[in-house]
Amino acid sequence: MKDGSIGVAVIGAGMAGRAHAAGYRSATTVFGADLPEVRLVAVADIDAAVAEEVRRRYGFARAEQSWQAVAEASDIDAVSVVVANHLHREVVEGLLAAGKHVLCEKPLAPSSRDAEAMVAAAEHAGQVTGVGYTYRRSPAVSAIRDELRSGRLGDPIHFNGHAWFDYALDPLVPMTWRYRGEAGSGALADVGSHLVDLAEHVCGPVLDVSGASFATAIAERPVPIGTTTGHGRAELSGEMAQVENDDIAVFTARFASGALGTFSVSRVAHGNPDGLGFEVFCSNGSAAFDLQRAAEFVISDSVPPAKSNGHRRVFVGPEHPYIHQGLPVDAPAGVGHGTADMFVYQTRAFLNQIAAIDELPPCASFADGLRGIQVLEAVAASANRQGATVRVA
Amino acid sequence: MKDGSIGVAVIGAGMAGRAHAAGYRSATTVFGADLPEVRLVAVADIDAAVAEEVRRRYGFARAEQSWQAVAEASDIDAVSVVVANHLHREVVEGLLAAGKHVLCEKPLAPSSRDAEAMVAAAEHAGQVTGVGYTYRRSPAVSAIRDELRSGRLGDPIHFNGHAWFDYALDPLVPMTWRYRGEAGSGALADVGSHLVDLAEHVCGPVLDVSGASFATAIAERPVPIGTTTGHGRAELSGEMAQVENDDIAVFTARFASGALGTFSVSRVAHGNPDGLGFEVFCSNGSAAFDLQRAAEFVISDSVPPAKSNGHRRVFVGPEHPYIHQGLPVDAPAGVGHGTADMFVYQTRAFLNQIAAIDELPPCASFADGLRGIQVLEAVAASANRQGATVRVA
Amino acid sequence: MKDGSIGVAVIGAGMAGRAHAAGYRSATTVFGADLPEVRLVAVADIDAAVAEEVRRRYGFARAEQSWQAVAEASDIDAVSVVVANHLHREVVEGLLAAGKHVLCEKPLAPSSRDAEAMVAAAEHAGQVTGVGYTYRRSPAVSAIRDELRSGRLGDPIHFNGHAWFDYALDPLVPMTWRYRGEAGSGALADVGSHLVDLAEHVCGPVLDVSGASFATAIAERPVPIGTTTGHGRAELSGEMAQVENDDIAVFTARFASGALGTFSVSRVAHGNPDGLGFEVFCSNGSAAFDLQRAAEFVISDSVPPAKSNGHRRVFVGPEHPYIHQGLPVDAPAGVGHGTADMFVYQTRAFLNQIAAIDELPPCASFADGLRGIQVLEAVAASANRQGATVRVA
Amino acid sequence: MKDGSIGVAVIGAGMAGRAHAAGYRSATTVFGADLPEVRLVAVADIDAAVAEEVRRRYGFARAEQSWQAVAEASDIDAVSVVVANHLHREVVEGLLAAGKHVLCEKPLAPSSRDAEAMVAAAEHAGQVTGVGYTYRRSPAVSAIRDELRSGRLGDPIHFNGHAWFDYALDPLVPMTWRYRGEAGSGALADVGSHLVDLAEHVCGPVLDVSGASFATAIAERPVPIGTTTGHGRAELSGEMAQVENDDIAVFTARFASGALGTFSVSRVAHGNPDGLGFEVFCSNGSAAFDLQRAAEFVISDSVPPAKSNGHRRVFVGPEHPYIHQGLPVDAPAGVGHGTADMFVYQTRAFLNQIAAIDELPPCASFADGLRGIQVLEAVAASANRQGATVRVA
Repeated sequence: MKDGSIGVAVIGAGMAGRAHAAGYRSATTVFGADLPEVRLVAVADIDAAVAEEVRRRYGFARAEQSWQAVAEASDIDAVSVVVANHLHREVVEGLLAAGKHVLCEKPLAPSSRDAEAMVAAAEHAGQVTGVGYTYRRSPAVSAIRDELRSGRLGDPIHFNGHAWFDYALDPLVPMTWRYRGEAGSGALADVGSHLVDLAEHVCGPVLDVSGASFATAIAERPVPIGTTTGHGRAELSGEMAQVENDDIAVFTARFASGALGTFSVSRVAHGNPDGLGFEVFCSNGSAAFDLQRAAEFVISDSVPPAKSNGHRRVFVGPEHPYIHQGLPVDAPAGVGHGTADMFVYQTRAFLNQIAAIDELPPCASFADGLRGIQVLEAVAASANRQGATVRVA
Repeated sequence: MKDGSIGVAVIGAGMAGRAHAAGYRSATTVFGADLPEVRLVAVADIDAAVAEEVRRRYGFARAEQSWQAVAEASDIDAVSVVVANHLHREVVEGLLAAGKHVLCEKPLAPSSRDAEAMVAAAEHAGQVTGVGYTYRRSPAVSAIRDELRSGRLGDPIHFNGHAWFDYALDPLVPMTWRYRGEAGSGALADVGSHLVDLAEHVCGPVLDVSGASFATAIAERPVPIGTTTGHGRAELSGEMAQVENDDIAVFTARFASGALGTFSVSRVAHGNPDGLGFEVFCSNGSAAFDLQRAAEFVISDSVPPAKSNGHRRVFVGPEHPYIHQGLPVDAPAGVGHGTADMFVYQTRAFLNQIAAIDELPPCASFADGLRGIQVLEAVAASANRQGATVRVA
Repeated sequence: MKDGSIGVAVIGAGMAGRAHAAGYRSATTVFGADLPEVRLVAVADIDAAVAEEVRRRYGFARAEQSWQAVAEASDIDAVSVVVANHLHREVVEGLLAAGKHVLCEKPLAPSSRDAEAMVAAAEHAGQVTGVGYTYRRSPAVSAIRDELRSGRLGDPIHFNGHAWFDYALDPLVPMTWRYRGEAGSGALADVGSHLVDLAEHVCGPVLDVSGASFATAIAERPVPIGTTTGHGRAELSGEMAQVENDDIAVFTARFASGALGTFSVSRVAHGNPDGLGFEVFCSNGSAAFDLQRAAEFVISDSVPPAKSNGHRRVFVGPEHPYIHQGLPVDAPAGVGHGTADMFVYQTRAFLNQIAAIDELPPCASFADGLRGIQVLEAVAASANRQGATVRVA
Repeated sequence: MKDGSIGVAVIGAGMAGRAHAAGYRSATTVFGADLPEVRLVAVADIDAAVAEEVRRRYGFARAEQSWQAVAEASDIDAVSVVVANHLHREVVEGLLAAGKHVLCEKPLAPSSRDAEAMVAAAEHAGQVTGVGYTYRRSPAVSAIRDELRSGRLGDPIHFNGHAWFDYALDPLVPMTWRYRGEAGSGALADVGSHLVDLAEHVCGPVLDVSGASFATAIAERPVPIGTTTGHGRAELSGEMAQVENDDIAVFTARFASGALGTFSVSRVAHGNPDGLGFEVFCSNGSAAFDLQRAAEFVISDSVPPAKSNGHRRVFVGPEHPYIHQGLPVDAPAGVGHGTADMFVYQTRAFLNQIAAIDELPPCASFADGLRGIQVLEAVAASANRQGATVRVA
């Protein structure tokens, strides 16, 4: 931190990179005001035009074309790594070696081997590191977690989670890196990883997984002309290519607490643009969340008289995590928030950690990121072994 | 059929027996009018007072105290068997031998061995036989099934089902037969059986199951004084007894169609009095049902323009199965219906089969009942074998 | 009552008449068992074929073609009058003079003048009389009413009600008696009357109405060939006729309690097959009901901690009015019910009154029926006087 | 615009002022990238500490203590006026005279007389002027408006709107300026004004209003010590003061199109933190919106087959106004947004108007602001005249 301020950069200027950039831009506007000055220094992308556009749009000082340029810059203290998963390890290790604090997008790495190396590198380096499990910043998820931790609902005994998205439903969405790789690297890694993280965030660690099965609903996809990003259609070459990984994944799990769970994951779930959610049943209550209605959650307990009791739909408001100072001060309940806000909370938490401000829950650690990968690897192993129960490493 | 009329009886006058009695009483009031006269002849229960009360309430002619009295009565043609599961085989075989048509409550028998014998007995006897999978008579479930069969939504690729009830959540609900028996005889057999039947009814046969796991949330329950029925509290003896079977069950499944599914079952699901439901995703649409809102269902397809598309909440009405003539003629959409109505449709279908009227889908057959048991046995086997994949017999 | 039993008849065998017939048929199956025997004696309709079909379907002994035949029958004690509104007075007065108990469909009469005469005739006769405000028998509405009466939610201060139906939305639905008559005799009298009755049932009497306005969305309708009943299409003559009365009605009201209310009424409300509902706000809570989800209601109060508080969606169950013994004994919550069940509860209440059994709230009285008409007349007067405030007589 | 850039300032640093500040800070991050540079110059508030905190939090260059300082600053081009309503005219006229572009919070002025003067001043000055009817920027409201304008749903015939908030429900919320003033200056002006604007935005101009009535649910409130802002509790003096204006307001309206409407307004609506919404019925469809679920809307039309038709719940996404480029580029549907985002869209639209960029609908004009006040004055007049119909000036 130069002069007590924090210089920040984002590597990777795609959809998620822009969300990180927006997070840094708004990080000072939320919560307490004692954060050091945040200098918006650099946006890096191999596509110079993209880097420049994002730089200008979010008010950063420089556009760069390599992560090395960021690593070498003396005016940069903290970096978000938002590049393709297989590049995470190289970039993160380089940045750590250069003394930067690093917030890495999830999943931390393509394999637990890589992730273990990154955990070791982070421990050795000693800077602040975090993984971008953004949905942990959902005020509603946080409120449910707090309820469970308070013990008021009793012990969690049963979890039912889904990660239903529809971005791959259109057979004309072209072949990209998303559709290549071994079983488990598809829907499971892309959207199921969020679900697994939420499950553990709310209910504690998963002990073992079982009954895993994968399916590919759309067997082949048209090959695009050139490289494509995002989820949309593109200009096509006329050729087709085999989809290699999972459109759908299912499994059951046992948590360390003894709770049982089901996990239903899909990228071809018709009618679900953003269907990440769960129900958690406890011995004295239950709660539910759906990202499609992120500004609310459902809770059931035994407080009111039976004849007027039932699921309560709670709109998040000043009583709930993040909202009080996360949105404009004194914001009433029900003003709504979106995924973009969760990125703001996440970057704020990362900056807080750097500044040693104890205000928000810290980012998911690299160890958490490793663990998420270990669960996914256990799921893939269960599928490979005819559904056998596989203990999470 | 004496003089072309059908004499009916109900054996077992508990909660479900009364629902059958009500079904016979109203069977002529719905659908086309050409059903033969239905004579309400007898209600049988070992508890004479209960039999008499139900007889009087539903306008039957006689109260009996044994199933044999029904079997021997020459004025009875068709019988509902609504007694404890372990008695099904004896009673049903006796009735079949006496030439009666039999509608047996689900599950058909406590084991596939018994159920196989009953299938053989039914084939040998040649009368009409059926199993009371009442929820197949849900207009909304039927509408979803019709949609899937029409092919309009494409092939089913992904199923997510839950059977969440809360009748066992209260630790003071006393020890009864419900809580005794091997793993799988608890929530799985009681409410999971309905879910499995609906899953196969809508998506076709399950090929194999995997990852099964059971849990008992409430380890012991108070022993009541005397015998108790129903789900409620009772006078207690002061002693406690171990709960033997499952409060919670989870598993995954693969359908013959290739679709993958998750199944989440509980009798301790806080806030869910009657939470039986599912989502089914197809290649070109999706649908969802929840028994707690039985008069509606959700459908998603690709018909309207994207900017006004989304899940449609359809209130069942004259366009849907059962409703047109099932409720008062010309009933508009949205007038609602309940489980009681499904029993009316079910008894009507059973009577129709006896009278060879082709108006409604026939009752689930004994073969269907056997199959349901085979799936549950496969689930139990998977749980016993550490979640291994088990093919349904 | 001949030999302690009650002989019943239904005059008018259309859609609502059949609902009454079904109600009588099932009246003994619900609630306590001490109701005298109910003899299903006669169904009367000027259309002999219709009368005979309904007789047979619901198991009545005789079909008749005139109300006089019912009035003269010595084996009939209680009669439902379900004929066209303008015939109510003549038929009811004739039946009362013949010593029958009378349950008259709503609205009681076409004018307060007629209704006043019927109130006087009922008082003079001394038999049991009632008006068929069936929705008062909704378990959810009753539960809300009980909550308000308990005072737990504080005083009602604000009411918002809607009666949105769509049966007249199709311009090819032909011209019938529904579309003839003065302003206020259309949607307001047909469906708004239910809303007004519910409003007063829940919040107490309306003091005055204001700001009333009517609109006719579909100015003319095709003339059918012959007479048509129901809401559907029919064979058309090729001619068109002017719609005379209101498709839409709006007004505000002040209750005697000081609460203010808005009323929104339509028979051309796209997407609402059966949209009768309201929100009522009190000083310490609020509640809401929608007939399209009749098996549930919403309540908000200040009991739970703020961070887990919100609207509670309560599924009606054994704790709620009607359900405990209204459905098969020991029915759990959430099994659902429909408009047909409300007719059963209504006829049961009528029979209870005849047998002097104090078990259910009595039927709406003829005085209540008169009052409902007076409110509607005040609304029409407000519309005629440019929205001026009109006190309910 | 100095050097082609736009210098901006916010006068008033309370809750809404901060929302404007956040809007300016993020205005460049959304939509097309060709907006001139936006310089965040000044935040002004009579409370110097508040001004400084907001300045620092949102990254503005200077804190000021008077609007005059803003008016006189040569580096400021565009100003948001977010001060108490009775100060609007003086501040706005001063800023216009100084050549500034002005975005004024709603309502434009305390009276139509003042608003007329401001309209005249704006016309004379010739700069860009706008009124902060922020909810017009709701993507869902905009999507509904587009649907109606497209004619696909037919003509609007029936509107039902509510503005239900609960900020005044707590009797210990102290006496502030909100609770003083003539009838109509309470809930009607504060939250009803948003509803009226949305109604006209979606359905076109209101012709006349009728049946208006006001009520005060909480007659007196505790007097705080010192000045209080926001909606919360405060330290109390021990004295009580009479609430002068309306907690609840109701009225009906006729639109120029012939459509009829009801309006239900409250600041004491239990369980509604932010309940602004409406249903609009057209001759061939209907639509509904509720701010508590701002990221979705409901639409009903006649496109799909009847048996799978029903209300569609549409999650706003890339197909809808604002979302495509308003959130991080390529954002999928369902990522959610909140009131804060609408402020970003609003300030962006204001800046676009200044830069003559034709990208978004322009801000509501001062003439629109005047009209909104005229409707509210007509409502107050109707209430004063016993609910008589009053034509909007």
